[in-house]
Amino acid sequence: MIKIALLGFGTVASGVPFLLEENASKIEQAVGGRLEIAKILVKDESEKQRLVEAGHDYHFVTDVAEIMTDQDIAIVVELMGRIEPAKTFISQALAAGKHVVSANKDLIAVHGKELLALADQHQVGFYYEAAVAGGIPILRTLANSLTADKVTRLLGVLNGTSNFMLTKMVDEGWSYEQALATAQELGYAESDPTNDVEGIDAAYKAAILSQFGFGMTVDFETVRHSGISTITPADVTMAQQLGYVIKLVGDVRETASGLSVEVAPTFLPKSHPLASVNGVMNAVFVESIGIGQSMFYGPGAGQKPTAVSVVADLVQLGRAITDGQVISAFNGFAQETHLAQPEDVTNSYYFALSIKDEAGQFFKLAQLFAKENISFQQVLQTEGDGETARVVIVTHEMSLVQLDRVRTQIATADQVTLLNHFKVLGV
Amino acid sequence: MIKIALLGFGTVASGVPFLLEENASKIEQAVGGRLEIAKILVKDESEKQRLVEAGHDYHFVTDVAEIMTDQDIAIVVELMGRIEPAKTFISQALAAGKHVVSANKDLIAVHGKELLALADQHQVGFYYEAAVAGGIPILRTLANSLTADKVTRLLGVLNGTSNFMLTKMVDEGWSYEQALATAQELGYAESDPTNDVEGIDAAYKAAILSQFGFGMTVDFETVRHSGISTITPADVTMAQQLGYVIKLVGDVRETASGLSVEVAPTFLPKSHPLASVNGVMNAVFVESIGIGQSMFYGPGAGQKPTAVSVVADLVQLGRAITDGQVISAFNGFAQETHLAQPEDVTNSYYFALSIKDEAGQFFKLAQLFAKENISFQQVLQTEGDGETARVVIVTHEMSLVQLDRVRTQIATADQVTLLNHFKVLGV
Repeated sequence: MIKIALLGFGTVASGVPFLLEENASKIEQAVGGRLEIAKILVKDESEKQRLVEAGHDYHFVTDVAEIMTDQDIAIVVELMGRIEPAKTFISQALAAGKHVVSANKDLIAVHGKELLALADQHQVGFYYEAAVAGGIPILRTLANSLTADKVTRLLGVLNGTSNFMLTKMVDEGWSYEQALATAQELGYAESDPTNDVEGIDAAYKAAILSQFGFGMTVDFETVRHSGISTITPADVTMAQQLGYVIKLVGDVRETASGLSVEVAPTFLPKSHPLASVNGVMNAVFVESIGIGQSMFYGPGAGQKPTAVSVVADLVQLGRAITDGQVISAFNGFAQETHLAQPEDVTNSYYFALSIKDEAGQFFKLAQLFAKENISFQQVLQTEGDGETARVVIVTHEMSLVQLDRVRTQIATADQVTLLNHFKVLGV
Repeated sequence: MIKIALLGFGTVASGVPFLLEENASKIEQAVGGRLEIAKILVKDESEKQRLVEAGHDYHFVTDVAEIMTDQDIAIVVELMGRIEPAKTFISQALAAGKHVVSANKDLIAVHGKELLALADQHQVGFYYEAAVAGGIPILRTLANSLTADKVTRLLGVLNGTSNFMLTKMVDEGWSYEQALATAQELGYAESDPTNDVEGIDAAYKAAILSQFGFGMTVDFETVRHSGISTITPADVTMAQQLGYVIKLVGDVRETASGLSVEVAPTFLPKSHPLASVNGVMNAVFVESIGIGQSMFYGPGAGQKPTAVSVVADLVQLGRAITDGQVISAFNGFAQETHLAQPEDVTNSYYFALSIKDEAGQFFKLAQLFAKENISFQQVLQTEGDGETARVVIVTHEMSLVQLDRVRTQIATADQVTLLNHFKVLGV
């Protein structure tokens, strides 16, 4: 029997005992023994009392020391979220020689390196399959199945909340505000939705994917991210007319100078497998030299899907404990981190611009782009109102340096306003 | 250093050294040592000479005993295909205490149980990720990541050749014959395409998926399978009109009495994630109580994708050898095999019928179905030619028993001909 402690007993955590019970015999076969929840840390006496009254007969504790000093507890599962006290508790557990399973993407994206080093030092495992794309086993797949392959690019729809909102904006023509209000009503978005809608949550996940796909530890601060709040119904309509769907996409790829890690609203060709990932579903699309193209699709959040990933980590650790084996690192792939130079990161872009509705204005606009050596794939000028006209441009590939320069050019030009610009993925 | 022998040096096998070289440092990190191809079995001296002349400097042997008696060889990779001599060679290798990696779906579907027992007896590993869906790591994912989950249904587009043909039949309106001719020209279909087009290849894979998803070893003879050769352009058009796409789908699911394993052309709702799996791509769609719905998508065949799966097996075995660990079974999940009773296997069905074009005939047809308690979801009668009319029916859920009975009824009825019938997946 292998004893486990849970830190926190929120939504995901309470899915863990459900799975351990529901699939008891399958899990016992896989582990070669039983996984038992020995102690559960809750916030205070009142939470403890509430849970006991609700009929839970676990050994609830309010002092984390009761877990850390318990020699019988082999694995600690952290499902509290946020940075502190989770970071302190995980560090204590690792230092006490306990394996740790976590779903805490914020913490792992920002402090993962330090925690992994601590795990390594104490020869224990620190596993976190549930931290990226909830129910999709993408981290273990990258670590165990794509070991023999060389990943060149990872593209992911990594945030269910924003994907739900964008799906409504595309399918139902809702505005961003309508979509957000509904997401909040349904409990998909928090009252402060910043992390979800501004690409921060997806950026955490992109940083973690960088470790598994490319063996590189990326400083979270270097992940470029932008969100969906600036997307207008006009952009959505235009995307559809041009044959695209807008999704918030995490994009981790190798360039000549190093790794580029970015989260941004992206125009995906309708035929791209990621384009049909709708609602709260997530997916990671992998480009690699061996397999070519593959995709892993599933729910990005939710009690049971996330708990499945947590218990998969528990089973792998449990099996190693049963067999008395060396605990393998969750991700054995590491190489020196090099970040891409902006001139090596190239994309096509969509620009929505407003220009004065008079002869010669479009020519001036075209000059701005030509000056930066940016060529056009598609141009669409819709009829103006006599005052201004709306111009939409999809460019050929251009670099981040060119993007910066042309934006500066536009900002300082007379009678041209940049309404919006988004990344466009080629077919 | 861990020494490997390859049995056979065809397309997939020659992808293995490519990957070992291309990703040498990543693989060495994962294994904790180097994987070296020590010997390669080829058919005869003339093949050996041809390969040497082509510039390959491996140690080619023509006598398998040179591999079996070589104590330094730890892992044997069988990529010869077909049943014999592959079965004998794998048995010899396992009995000699060597781990075996194979991509031989026919062999594993039919004789897997016996070979796994032999591996178990000699405490060696027998791994075969590449046997199902080439580059998609579906077996390892089911074994290692869905351990904590209970799979209720696996649906798969498992044969690239037939999927390529069906994609052309749907997108381009080609006939079966045109699609087959092109598949043969492109080298996707063999001169005798039976295994691919009649669902036999997909049935092998469905049998193997049954082990991993449900822990049940299914006798290959009990896998119901039908193919795509009877699909007419009229069926394809009708499917589109009704909102479906036809795919050859492997369907493994739990029913009240046990497991149902079937491969059949299936009408998939256009919104189903499997409906957009086109060309030679494969995908496995998983329904489970924990994750809910997930899908794993990628190339089903090809040199490099298949070799990635082979090398992933090599890396896992290599790591265990380096660490001196107990070799885990490729799939640790086993339970007693129960097969579904036909009355518990229910589907909706599409029936295309020809009836005499006169008053009262449709009523008679409806009576045949009503008699077997089969109700209709959709009915479409197209204008007749004065002689006969074409009727298309999509039924509500009905069992295999009802299907058999109504087919008998139709066969013996006057002036009604069953043109075709296919399974229909609900939304």
